[in-house]
Amino acid sequence: MAVVSVRKTISSRGNHHVLDITSQVADSVQQSGVESGVATVFVTGSTAGVTTVEFEPGLVADLETAFDRLVPRELEYRHHERWGDDNGHSHVRASLLGPSLAVPFNGGRLELGTWQQIVLIDFDTRPRNREYLVQIVG
Amino acid sequence: MAVVSVRKTISSRGNHHVLDITSQVADSVQQSGVESGVATVFVTGSTAGVTTVEFEPGLVADLETAFDRLVPRELEYRHHERWGDDNGHSHVRASLLGPSLAVPFNGGRLELGTWQQIVLIDFDTRPRNREYLVQIVG
Amino acid sequence: MAVVSVRKTISSRGNHHVLDITSQVADSVQQSGVESGVATVFVTGSTAGVTTVEFEPGLVADLETAFDRLVPRELEYRHHERWGDDNGHSHVRASLLGPSLAVPFNGGRLELGTWQQIVLIDFDTRPRNREYLVQIVG
Repeated sequence: MAVVSVRKTISSRGNHHVLDITSQVADSVQQSGVESGVATVFVTGSTAGVTTVEFEPGLVADLETAFDRLVPRELEYRHHERWGDDNGHSHVRASLLGPSLAVPFNGGRLELGTWQQIVLIDFDTRPRNREYLVQIVG
Repeated sequence: MAVVSVRKTISSRGNHHVLDITSQVADSVQQSGVESGVATVFVTGSTAGVTTVEFEPGLVADLETAFDRLVPRELEYRHHERWGDDNGHSHVRASLLGPSLAVPFNGGRLELGTWQQIVLIDFDTRPRNREYLVQIVG
Repeated sequence: MAVVSVRKTISSRGNHHVLDITSQVADSVQQSGVESGVATVFVTGSTAGVTTVEFEPGLVADLETAFDRLVPRELEYRHHERWGDDNGHSHVRASLLGPSLAVPFNGGRLELGTWQQIVLIDFDTRPRNREYLVQIVG
């Protein structure tokens, strides 16, 4: 049994940019040399989340539309009073989606469906580098 | 320490069919012989999710109503333009709920509340067999 | 490799009380003596959930407002017909948020962002003690 921790950085445009990180996670697992176990993908910071989706432009747009409708940017957020920030909706969306995803792997390969990709969604309001961790236990 | 991977199939009606998979997960843990650790339940495919709920018909209906209200089937989805599919809402619901759930166990038993069951929700629009994995690490 | 299971209780006011449990989880990890791995935070019971948020009063209020808007208490819930309960919305909110969060740690320290706290949100309608588990595998 082993624990391997891989730190990753990815460039994001923000504003619910949906980033496909499947190959980075898969490479981390393969290079760890661990045969089977669970890869926990965790995004540090409180304005981004992780989930899976069939990564094609139509669905990416549908996801963005859903977040715009469910947690609109235009509402009033008490968070803005504190720091003069403009990203109250980013925080709320990130908390709803969650920062963490646990993906099983066997034979060094992630157990994803054919049309199922791991995505990091950056809800913040500006371009930035986002950091996430792939914690491999197995 | 050990990793035990159990592959499961379950028959689903689709259209937010809420399936109680608690006993299957519990049996997998017990039969693994692992005493304590974490069981990661992961549904392969991008139109289903996993969570917990008090599994009784009233709440199952309430959950279905909530998804119908939050991510309505009748909206326009860009995903439909790509494949001629009719399940854009299924994908969006699945991404929001998430495909993965990590449940601790001790003494070979899942650490669930008395009124807390593990459910797989199939959001796709047709009956099918759904596959999920129980990855036991401990 | 080791598994350490820590059972915690926290006093809650209910009604989407957002409780910062970061230091309790961090202490559990540190006292476990495990160097690196994953801490799975799991709330037992079906009316509470776990996520991360920048824990400041403005955002806590924004989260509460979002849940009140997305899953209103005033709707009709079929769950109420069964037990005469008044917490159908609590169950639905808890299922959407999810009971489980997997947080990586290294060098005995949780890999959280600076403005990212672990919170337990109790959606039930009355004050009570809530139980959760920190399952440390590493």
